[in-house]
Amino acid sequence: MRATTRRRVRRLSLDGVERTGPDTLAGEQPLEIALSGEPWVVSMRTPGHDFDLVLGLLHAEGIIVDAAEVATMSYRGGVDPDGSRSFNHLDVRLAPGVVRPASTDRAVYTSSSCGACGTASIEAVTKLSRFDVAADRTAVPLTEVLSWPDRLRERQEMFDRTGGVHAAALVEAGGGVVCVREDVGRHNAVDKIVGWALREGRLPLRGHALQLSGRISFELVQKAHLAGIPLVSAVSAPSSLAVETADEAGITLVGFNRGRGCNVYTHPDRVLT
Amino acid sequence: MRATTRRRVRRLSLDGVERTGPDTLAGEQPLEIALSGEPWVVSMRTPGHDFDLVLGLLHAEGIIVDAAEVATMSYRGGVDPDGSRSFNHLDVRLAPGVVRPASTDRAVYTSSSCGACGTASIEAVTKLSRFDVAADRTAVPLTEVLSWPDRLRERQEMFDRTGGVHAAALVEAGGGVVCVREDVGRHNAVDKIVGWALREGRLPLRGHALQLSGRISFELVQKAHLAGIPLVSAVSAPSSLAVETADEAGITLVGFNRGRGCNVYTHPDRVLT
Repeated sequence: MRATTRRRVRRLSLDGVERTGPDTLAGEQPLEIALSGEPWVVSMRTPGHDFDLVLGLLHAEGIIVDAAEVATMSYRGGVDPDGSRSFNHLDVRLAPGVVRPASTDRAVYTSSSCGACGTASIEAVTKLSRFDVAADRTAVPLTEVLSWPDRLRERQEMFDRTGGVHAAALVEAGGGVVCVREDVGRHNAVDKIVGWALREGRLPLRGHALQLSGRISFELVQKAHLAGIPLVSAVSAPSSLAVETADEAGITLVGFNRGRGCNVYTHPDRVLT
Repeated sequence: MRATTRRRVRRLSLDGVERTGPDTLAGEQPLEIALSGEPWVVSMRTPGHDFDLVLGLLHAEGIIVDAAEVATMSYRGGVDPDGSRSFNHLDVRLAPGVVRPASTDRAVYTSSSCGACGTASIEAVTKLSRFDVAADRTAVPLTEVLSWPDRLRERQEMFDRTGGVHAAALVEAGGGVVCVREDVGRHNAVDKIVGWALREGRLPLRGHALQLSGRISFELVQKAHLAGIPLVSAVSAPSSLAVETADEAGITLVGFNRGRGCNVYTHPDRVLT
């Protein structure tokens, strides 16, 4: 039950060199989450920071707005196929008075690359944020924005060993990196950051930016909005709906941030040139 | 309602050059699918090849094994916020006698990066394939395997314009590329290929390989297994569970395929050196 696993691999190349040796793989394991004693969701994730992942998921689904609304979280007993103790079943008890919405009555499955499973209609896909991100007056010099990818990259420890995980960093404008998470699922990395911030009582994340290692989809912008983050930056491209969502939410969306330059898709006033 | 959209973007760089101009974004739109008159799933996808996407999804969920089991598919009426005709609602009617399983009774949502939503437990996440991929004796010279990334890359038309979509290619061993699909969701690209193959009556895809533009997660290997594909290759890394799943399914899994060399994680006998 580790964040990475070792495995023998055969390395082939055109120049005829052929070697067999150990390789480090990013861990991907299902986490079955029970909510108030009932199955809720199965999430494919990289083991580690599971409690923060669950807090972030509960927040993204609108079930909690404060970490205190979760009474207890504990791994259920059980063993993995190899006989070791299983850490793939988690029991969550909500605090008295916290209502589990009817829309999450049925258990759903989220793959390692899924961000927001369990919603019934197009209308329900869009979740309202309780934070007015548009009113956040944070502004950051371009040089600082362009420094974020390197500051994330130098802390991607799992990527260094596996070459196969997404990462997200929470950065304080005018300050440093405050939290980095890596996961085979890019949405999981963000959920783990939001869960950490929720546990630390830091929401809304005014004056913060989210730096992502890959592309930007709709649900990543929505998760930033729900956490009150005014700036989202990524090394690669945003989708059309990511840009529309950021525009409406008042979020500054930066794409193709590659150190020497970047594209600003929405609300460029927060990037000072 | 297009596969790509145009939008004004501000391009900033460290040398002080600042330009505002049009940028092409990969389309991401929700597709609400109704099955036999009931809500079934909302999928975040790049518009285009929607019927193949739905066929591939129905196949991956074990609801159909043949395209003839779908009686009709049609876009429902409606308009987008901009007043144009909406292509985001699709009605699917199954042929008489085809049973919609109880486990899919409730509508679920799949994000643009989710591959297999709607499953209740860890056990149900693993789907059995009706094809014995392990018995497929296909073998391919290393030089041919190493040529697949370039052959996919030269057909990634949407990536050329947006820099922000995944792609998958179905390749015939000893032959050429037979189908390429691009989508903001990597699993969608594979579902669209499997849906196409299903419509063409080509399953099981013996003697074929799936070349992917990104990383390999568990569900991508499972989709290949369900379609009877014996070789899966990707430009980037597999996850631990992707490797375990390929090992058990008898699939040859190739990662870090970068033209000059690659890693073979499972069943290396199909790659001839």
